[in-house]
Amino acid sequence: MNYSCTAYELKCNECGKRFGNQPLSACPDCLAPLEVAYDLEAARGVFTREAIAAGPPSIWRYAALLPIPAGHQPDLPVGFTPLIKANNLGKRIGATNLYIKNDAVCFPTLSFKDRVVSVALANAQRFGFETVGCSSTGNLANSVAAQAARLGIKACILVPAELEAAKILNTQVYGARLVRIDGNYDHVNRLCSQIADEYNWGFVNVNLRPYYAEGSKTVGYEIAEKLGWRLPDNVVVPMAGGSLIRKIRKAFQELIYLGLVEEKPVRFFGAQATGCSPISQAVKLGNDFIEPQRPNTIARSLAIGNPADGPAASQMIRATGGWAEDVSDVELVSGMQELAETEGIFTETAGGVTTAVTARLYAQGRISPDELTVACITGNGLKTTDALAGHYPEERAVRPRLADFDAYLRELDGAAEPELAAIGGIHAN
Amino acid sequence: MNYSCTAYELKCNECGKRFGNQPLSACPDCLAPLEVAYDLEAARGVFTREAIAAGPPSIWRYAALLPIPAGHQPDLPVGFTPLIKANNLGKRIGATNLYIKNDAVCFPTLSFKDRVVSVALANAQRFGFETVGCSSTGNLANSVAAQAARLGIKACILVPAELEAAKILNTQVYGARLVRIDGNYDHVNRLCSQIADEYNWGFVNVNLRPYYAEGSKTVGYEIAEKLGWRLPDNVVVPMAGGSLIRKIRKAFQELIYLGLVEEKPVRFFGAQATGCSPISQAVKLGNDFIEPQRPNTIARSLAIGNPADGPAASQMIRATGGWAEDVSDVELVSGMQELAETEGIFTETAGGVTTAVTARLYAQGRISPDELTVACITGNGLKTTDALAGHYPEERAVRPRLADFDAYLRELDGAAEPELAAIGGIHAN
Repeated sequence: MNYSCTAYELKCNECGKRFGNQPLSACPDCLAPLEVAYDLEAARGVFTREAIAAGPPSIWRYAALLPIPAGHQPDLPVGFTPLIKANNLGKRIGATNLYIKNDAVCFPTLSFKDRVVSVALANAQRFGFETVGCSSTGNLANSVAAQAARLGIKACILVPAELEAAKILNTQVYGARLVRIDGNYDHVNRLCSQIADEYNWGFVNVNLRPYYAEGSKTVGYEIAEKLGWRLPDNVVVPMAGGSLIRKIRKAFQELIYLGLVEEKPVRFFGAQATGCSPISQAVKLGNDFIEPQRPNTIARSLAIGNPADGPAASQMIRATGGWAEDVSDVELVSGMQELAETEGIFTETAGGVTTAVTARLYAQGRISPDELTVACITGNGLKTTDALAGHYPEERAVRPRLADFDAYLRELDGAAEPELAAIGGIHAN
Repeated sequence: MNYSCTAYELKCNECGKRFGNQPLSACPDCLAPLEVAYDLEAARGVFTREAIAAGPPSIWRYAALLPIPAGHQPDLPVGFTPLIKANNLGKRIGATNLYIKNDAVCFPTLSFKDRVVSVALANAQRFGFETVGCSSTGNLANSVAAQAARLGIKACILVPAELEAAKILNTQVYGARLVRIDGNYDHVNRLCSQIADEYNWGFVNVNLRPYYAEGSKTVGYEIAEKLGWRLPDNVVVPMAGGSLIRKIRKAFQELIYLGLVEEKPVRFFGAQATGCSPISQAVKLGNDFIEPQRPNTIARSLAIGNPADGPAASQMIRATGGWAEDVSDVELVSGMQELAETEGIFTETAGGVTTAVTARLYAQGRISPDELTVACITGNGLKTTDALAGHYPEERAVRPRLADFDAYLRELDGAAEPELAAIGGIHAN
């Protein structure tokens, strides 16, 4: 398959200066972050509903508006995850038109980070980096390690020392070099900036960040396409660095500009854990700046105390008429359980945050029951099983005999009557 | 979307008697297992390449040859997982035309069991069961629990007491009742047969088994479609009960019969852990019967000592000119690591078995390097992290300063020279 990309280059958000394409994340003049700017007019004939529908069931169907090098042959069928109508969860929290975007099953490493990493590594190859790396709260580590292994690129990954065991193993198993840093994500991230300069490595979320971040747009494209080329009324998005929520909006704006969807107002809602809630605090206080926090939450994948895109995210959320909320660790665990029990989706702690915040937004009346609302689940529960430790007591083992099973069920149900066949039964054909 | 299914009903493999559609797994006369028989002629105009291509990116694109009730609206986009060319793994094991079918990322619960469960539960609903259940070595438990939660059906799941923690949690989290049985899978399975009779529950792999097992055909359909409607030369499939490998063959035969692929010989290779290898032993000895074993392997999802479809699987494998092999627990762990390091795929212990057996089949010369070979990976590594415990020593945490990082890398690399920039670098643009 050949992918024709629209012309693009790096551009400073502040001064508008353009930089071609190179591994660079900030404007040398005004220090503002760089973004990828496309020749959107040129995309008109290429980025159409029909062309997209004819593409593969992966993010590469949107390649015309992704910054991948000319002639690049995408290697893996990343993304294109399910969008599920959540009627059961809706009943519990008072929503009648709620959808779940489920990146807990994203290919290949079960989080939305697979999207950004595949775009970043395409550019790492183009710029000739032999070693790639990242600072990560876990999901990014998993994805960089796995995709670098597949591409035959060396990977060196830096994480906070206190990361969940499953996320550490799920990085090491791919043969990546994993370095545990004695500090939180913000310490790790600062160090990575220095390493990128000294070692000339391609850090996906440092010197390759503008390309990397564009991968998140595919969440927005997929939401619109899977809704039948409509935009939702509301989107609820977990926030760590604050990039994803902004890129979903960018995707929607591109779709409107190119006529793939009708223009309509979409409100953006951000979700954080109270133990690390610098962006939700900024939204609540009406601030365009961020007061950094020292993270203290089990939602480690959201534990970024000084989020790079925090100011812009806060400003954007308020501009759309949205809001941000944050929930306690106890509430986020309940959110994980609620989503699993109602929709059969086992998400990590961050998804528990999104679920609990979504419930609260309905309870507050900030989202009306019948508004078309999409909650973004970004990672898999098998990566943060510790969060549920102790929530399900280990029942005793039962002998493999029917009489023992019967007795055990009676014990569990506290039923005196052995009228057990009434528990279930054939009722119709 | 409306799905028109071909007419089907249960039929005895031995005596040919037909039973309509009902929750029944064995012929009351000759006790042989029942299978779903279709009116294949009626499928000719319906089950075409074009109709399938126009379907959704899930197993429901093959609904015309799945036993789902008329008018059934499939609820979840199950399956349609990636088929990946495995050049890196191929280089290590001497294969030049090797593919991985990757059900480690199957939706919704990360194993091929999602396919069979979605078909079984469609029939559980049609037969009016209010409670469903299964005997399981883990993956099936996860899938029944999740999909039953989504459908609002009660679930009671029986597992061997010694199951991996992640698989137990990943069942409980969906709100299913989990009963740990003091015995191995074969004990659990026998008990479930008795419970199904007494309680009138819908056990997906007991009284719903004929419908359930048909879901596995979709692995075969997907392999052929993703190869551009071609059959491979060889398929390597892990074996627990022995059902999957037979159903992949059934799928291929249906595709040949209906003219979707050209007829060609396909050899089937079975993979087991030596600690539970009743089917591979039967193949090696040329037996059509199974000598039951007491399982003793960390590949718990394959630990079925008395596999229901073992005799038929052994016979079929030999009839196709294939073979079966089994590997030790040490080898299967290496297989897990090798697949992760080369292709970025983190699979569970069963996938380590498949990978290690595949390598051995090439080494033995049973598969030639250039033959088009597909190895089936059926589950995710995050469910069996214990298997890798102790394989990756916990490195010390490094202070978040460049000098400390430099020193740490030198220490790891044992390099005297601080010529660190040479490790990676920008080489081209």
